[in-house]
Amino acid sequence: MPIEVLDNALTDQRLNQLTQALGSGMFVHVRNMLHDMAASDIAFILESSPPRTRQVLWQLIDQDQTGEILDELGEELKDNLIKQMSPERVAKAAARMDTDDLAYILRSLPDSVFKQVLNSMSSQDRVRVEQALSYPDDTAGSIMNTDTVTLRPDVNIDVILRYLRIRGKLPEATDTLYVVDKHDRLLGGVELADLLTCDPNSSIRAIMDAKLEGIPVGMSDNEVAQLFERHDWISAPVIGDDNQLLGRITIDDVVDVIRENAEHSMMGMAGMDDDADTFGPVLKSTLQRSLWLTINLFAALLAASVSNMFEGTIEQFATIAILMTIVPSMGGVAGNQTLALVIRGLALGQIGKSNSRWLIGKELAIGFLNGILWSVLVFIAIWLWKDDIALGALIGGAMLINMTVAGLAGACIPLLLKKMKIDPALAGGMVLTTVTDIIGLFAFLGLATIFLLN
Amino acid sequence: MPIEVLDNALTDQRLNQLTQALGSGMFVHVRNMLHDMAASDIAFILESSPPRTRQVLWQLIDQDQTGEILDELGEELKDNLIKQMSPERVAKAAARMDTDDLAYILRSLPDSVFKQVLNSMSSQDRVRVEQALSYPDDTAGSIMNTDTVTLRPDVNIDVILRYLRIRGKLPEATDTLYVVDKHDRLLGGVELADLLTCDPNSSIRAIMDAKLEGIPVGMSDNEVAQLFERHDWISAPVIGDDNQLLGRITIDDVVDVIRENAEHSMMGMAGMDDDADTFGPVLKSTLQRSLWLTINLFAALLAASVSNMFEGTIEQFATIAILMTIVPSMGGVAGNQTLALVIRGLALGQIGKSNSRWLIGKELAIGFLNGILWSVLVFIAIWLWKDDIALGALIGGAMLINMTVAGLAGACIPLLLKKMKIDPALAGGMVLTTVTDIIGLFAFLGLATIFLLN
Repeated sequence: MPIEVLDNALTDQRLNQLTQALGSGMFVHVRNMLHDMAASDIAFILESSPPRTRQVLWQLIDQDQTGEILDELGEELKDNLIKQMSPERVAKAAARMDTDDLAYILRSLPDSVFKQVLNSMSSQDRVRVEQALSYPDDTAGSIMNTDTVTLRPDVNIDVILRYLRIRGKLPEATDTLYVVDKHDRLLGGVELADLLTCDPNSSIRAIMDAKLEGIPVGMSDNEVAQLFERHDWISAPVIGDDNQLLGRITIDDVVDVIRENAEHSMMGMAGMDDDADTFGPVLKSTLQRSLWLTINLFAALLAASVSNMFEGTIEQFATIAILMTIVPSMGGVAGNQTLALVIRGLALGQIGKSNSRWLIGKELAIGFLNGILWSVLVFIAIWLWKDDIALGALIGGAMLINMTVAGLAGACIPLLLKKMKIDPALAGGMVLTTVTDIIGLFAFLGLATIFLLN
Repeated sequence: MPIEVLDNALTDQRLNQLTQALGSGMFVHVRNMLHDMAASDIAFILESSPPRTRQVLWQLIDQDQTGEILDELGEELKDNLIKQMSPERVAKAAARMDTDDLAYILRSLPDSVFKQVLNSMSSQDRVRVEQALSYPDDTAGSIMNTDTVTLRPDVNIDVILRYLRIRGKLPEATDTLYVVDKHDRLLGGVELADLLTCDPNSSIRAIMDAKLEGIPVGMSDNEVAQLFERHDWISAPVIGDDNQLLGRITIDDVVDVIRENAEHSMMGMAGMDDDADTFGPVLKSTLQRSLWLTINLFAALLAASVSNMFEGTIEQFATIAILMTIVPSMGGVAGNQTLALVIRGLALGQIGKSNSRWLIGKELAIGFLNGILWSVLVFIAIWLWKDDIALGALIGGAMLINMTVAGLAGACIPLLLKKMKIDPALAGGMVLTTVTDIIGLFAFLGLATIFLLN
């Protein structure tokens, strides 16, 4: 583990140096610079570069490093680069990759290339790949590695110590060796630290942690991440139906899952794909953003058609039209606050049957209290501005209605979407804003029509 | 490391059982259930419970477990519970906590209680605490533990192996032992795995990784997290100015930093504090959300005052008023997409001097392309709906202007805020929406005034 301090400023500086060297055509210099860098740093620099720089850098990278670098890249960029590679180069890169990343990459290849890649692999690699491909995406199996070191229970520690010395280097992030019976069923685990501190004459069985239970291979990766986070694990064994050991999951892959899930919520709420490439090409990015904008156009037209129903009121009172955006806007913000809280709670697995009713009640209460507070404030503001006490009261009343609905909707919408198996992080914001816009306009324009037109 | 499979369904089931047992007053039963659970699971259940249930559960928890449970709780809930504890109980809990968590808790205590807690501690604990308190929040020092195991370079491995056996249990998440000189300056590291696989007759110096560099104690925790993520570390040494070893950072604390940063972006963009407690009390939650709503009210009034400037146009053409929300709405969504992308890029450290200009150009181009696309679509929609080609052209023109500005603003606002040392995740969304609302209204109402009133 070569540790190297590399802070943002430093990365930025290197990026500058690389960009300058590229700009002045000093390709040999760039190639040497890249040669001296760790794969993870090169991946970071590729992620942070505009498309043209990426292309040039990618040409200058050592073929040997390709696999390790691909391992570290975000999905969108990874897919793009692989599409440009020859099957032979993919196969060569594959040999140096972890099983889980390999499976991911192969899944994204077109069938013909997939077969070519598989054919250019060694038979050992092919077995690894076929195994990895058999687990669905987003499960424990898909982030699992098969490089476990296993022990038998009735062996003395000094025998194991001798065996390890002959065996040599252990797989990365190995903190625990797994104890299995002759059918490969998981019996327990022995931490490396315990091997070092225990009496060498005791048996593995005596020092192993027999309470070690495995992660079922079909568990969702999100639940795996929650278990790792809650129990501060560094690695954990993965088991099949029969309790047989299939592999292990290590914290570095779990960190990726945690990061992806958190980004998914944040990007999703803004209507973006969490794989979106910050420095991706313009046209592709434009198209990626269309879906959300299309839905929003319909939502905005729907809101306009609500206003349209009150054309008469608007025609008579221009002030109503001028003020009518305030109520939906406040409802949208209040509803979004609740939505963010509930989406985070769902992502963390905090919200279930036992507490969702309480949560909805709480958010409804907050919405109502907020409604009272802001209806008073907006009443005062509008009264002072327009010198019209009735208008102030109207907007205040609409505010109370909309803020209360916003609290209720912000809590219920993600829970309902989840029940309907629709991702709340993706659809929640748009549904919520549509609701608060329409209720807000109905409440304000409706009240105005009732009280001002008579 | 007792591993135990506990998926969401199971947690929910336990929560149900606990809630039912509490409801029927079976407190002894609840106490026994809690006694058998891991601290991290109890913490999770406390986080997922409404206030009243929390209070009762907290009373029933073993005093011995208090420290470990506090360690695992979110900040808001942790603060609340500590405020209710006697200084003696805090001191007792403190003895079982990691240095970094201890420092966090003590920082949040009132001065008088702080002194009482310090006095009821053993002198050894007091030294640990004073040391931990000397590092500012959000730095490597604040997430560092001081429980390192150190070696001297000129010792043979078999001597170390004997020493470790006498020493007994290693601190949690120890994967590397650090090699220091007599002034405690970091010389390198030896992985446990290497101790197990190397020739016992070689010296530590021969097998140590001399390239191991320490993390400066003042580095921001965000940068530390980026280093861990990029290099797949499990632990890393922390050093002072003189390269002397001060402690180590472990991946579990880094995972918390990653989670907090990601949540900060997501919650911040929705106008929420990332410490916000999902099941916190109503009144407190209501007040927490006020700041954002206050700012939004001003922004909404500002937008209304823009409409107010075009009162004449609105008076004459009610349809203008009905349609005037569409342009700001589309601009807001498009701008928010860019904003989310840039805020994530900033959080990941991807955006620097070398590429920010390219990024702004790219988002401006996307905004312009989106503008063309949506101005055509909205032109067709309005033409069909209102059978008015001039109106469709007006709204299309305004859309083009606002979407282009939205792309530019979505990229520039977070970069500018960062330069002004204002958190882009917190302020970005509100500033952006204000800009897209105002520009959108100005563009549409302005164009309408020019072309329709003549």
